[in-house]
Amino acid sequence: MQWYFIATLLTTLTSSQGILTTLSQSDGGYSYDYATVPFLAELFKLLVSICLLWKEWQSPIPPRMTTDWKVVRLFPIPSIIYLIHNNVQFATLTYVDTSTYQIMGNLKIVTTAILFRLFLKRKLSNLQWMAIILLAIGTTTSQVKGCGDASCNSFFSAPIQGYMFGIVSACLSALAGVYTEFLLKKNNDSLYWQNVQLYTFGAIFNMSRLILDDFRVGFERGPSWQHLFNGYTASTWFVVLNLGSSGLLVSWLLKYADNIVKVYSTSMAMLLTMVLSVFLFNFKPTVQLFLGIVICMMSLHMYFAPAHMLVDLPVTSREIVESIHDEVSVDRKVEA
Amino acid sequence: MQWYFIATLLTTLTSSQGILTTLSQSDGGYSYDYATVPFLAELFKLLVSICLLWKEWQSPIPPRMTTDWKVVRLFPIPSIIYLIHNNVQFATLTYVDTSTYQIMGNLKIVTTAILFRLFLKRKLSNLQWMAIILLAIGTTTSQVKGCGDASCNSFFSAPIQGYMFGIVSACLSALAGVYTEFLLKKNNDSLYWQNVQLYTFGAIFNMSRLILDDFRVGFERGPSWQHLFNGYTASTWFVVLNLGSSGLLVSWLLKYADNIVKVYSTSMAMLLTMVLSVFLFNFKPTVQLFLGIVICMMSLHMYFAPAHMLVDLPVTSREIVESIHDEVSVDRKVEA
Repeated sequence: MQWYFIATLLTTLTSSQGILTTLSQSDGGYSYDYATVPFLAELFKLLVSICLLWKEWQSPIPPRMTTDWKVVRLFPIPSIIYLIHNNVQFATLTYVDTSTYQIMGNLKIVTTAILFRLFLKRKLSNLQWMAIILLAIGTTTSQVKGCGDASCNSFFSAPIQGYMFGIVSACLSALAGVYTEFLLKKNNDSLYWQNVQLYTFGAIFNMSRLILDDFRVGFERGPSWQHLFNGYTASTWFVVLNLGSSGLLVSWLLKYADNIVKVYSTSMAMLLTMVLSVFLFNFKPTVQLFLGIVICMMSLHMYFAPAHMLVDLPVTSREIVESIHDEVSVDRKVEA
Repeated sequence: MQWYFIATLLTTLTSSQGILTTLSQSDGGYSYDYATVPFLAELFKLLVSICLLWKEWQSPIPPRMTTDWKVVRLFPIPSIIYLIHNNVQFATLTYVDTSTYQIMGNLKIVTTAILFRLFLKRKLSNLQWMAIILLAIGTTTSQVKGCGDASCNSFFSAPIQGYMFGIVSACLSALAGVYTEFLLKKNNDSLYWQNVQLYTFGAIFNMSRLILDDFRVGFERGPSWQHLFNGYTASTWFVVLNLGSSGLLVSWLLKYADNIVKVYSTSMAMLLTMVLSVFLFNFKPTVQLFLGIVICMMSLHMYFAPAHMLVDLPVTSREIVESIHDEVSVDRKVEA
């Protein structure tokens, strides 16, 4: 299985997530409790991973599984980072409007690359750094509000705390991804065993959140487990399955490819969602969406294309090599 | 004299051109006839070139000057192309609004590169092609109208003729530049002699235009030469000198560098003008201006930076070369 096949699949699923979520709304709102969706998605991922792990057990070579507490205790950390991240996101939104918030979200592309370099010690060429910055620029460009769009405030007018929280949020989001990659690549354990650990903690943290919310509203709607599926329709279930499947693909990519591939997949998905929205929901296409797509395509090519496809470098060095080879073979012929 | 010094100077002059033109206006309009400016600028360039040519004559090695009619007759062609271009520009503006017109103007960056490749047979690497497209995207991004800017129509709503004329206009503009480069590099003639020929025809064509305009309005303001300097202020003279000087620099760049360098200079100038306008005329800075500047800077680096600064390619080929060199020297030592 090639990573770009998985990456393309992730792009498709992530972009349909936006579309499905919109379709699952009725009269502009949710008929169900949206907080239940990530919890059920974690459960789905956990179930799938248990099944796959069980299947691996049946095979002649049983899966590698480290059960040492020193390793297992690392697995709740991503969930903890996401928990902090959620609260920082909430804090950010009290200072900035949603369009500034959305634009700042692209910062995580750059912070991911930085932490990828610092934390995982992975080197990027200058061109790849430029590609990363262009990807962030491209996604931002596509989100710039259009002509006559009165419902937006200026990007430069938010209080400084808003930008600070935005930067912290981008760092936490990047940290969660980079840390998970570190965890999955740390040893040769079966991915499904690693997933079981990740999603067990994920499910616990998500459940705690639902219960905490119950306490916060004083159980006025009764406990969560009683209205878990309230208002669920077929499209809500699709949202859950889709979110769960994307999560499994992300986990695969982080183990066998890396965070940068994941970032490209999800960024492309965002653009695809915008293009699909033009057709499905009659959104007005903007020049900036078109520009953003071209920029991101360039970035993709710059990052992943082999160097010889980009620059005409090798000719001279190859010529040197060939000329020396010629010399050598002539020398040897003479000797022979 | 290095070409990047001249290119930087051209950027400075071109960007101050926009500022000076705005400063030369009074009450939002021109107190002088703007059509006289290019004519006087041509005269200025002609005078400067004659002086420099005369200085070259005094030197021990007289300048190379081809006076064969077969060569001289090629020099009015750029002026003719510009004349057609002006009329196509005018036609374009009857179909599209000014902001669409401005955005389509960036197409000439790409058409210049295409004609540069086809007409002058100059090869560009894939990365350089991408840099060119990014430059066009970057300048376009910076021009996208901002939030709540009601004074703009959608880019996609102009009639098809508008886009066709826009493309023809971009091709003609590119053709003029590429043809002039071809002309200046065709032989080793003194640049000043080539300039004298170019600007003589330029001055004639501009003068004809003024006289034609006189006929068009039925000499209601009297002949042009009588009100040539009407309403001229010190800043108008600066506009003339500035336009003339930029023209001389462009000519130098086309002879000793190329059209792509010129395109980068003038694109950077456009961005510089927008940044200066923020400070000088209290224009509101937009996110898209910031994004456009970053994109253009990336493009500049991608186009001009040496390949080894961009990709980590040479290590292996260099290693091969070195290892072979080692072998060869070992062989020779043994022989010795």
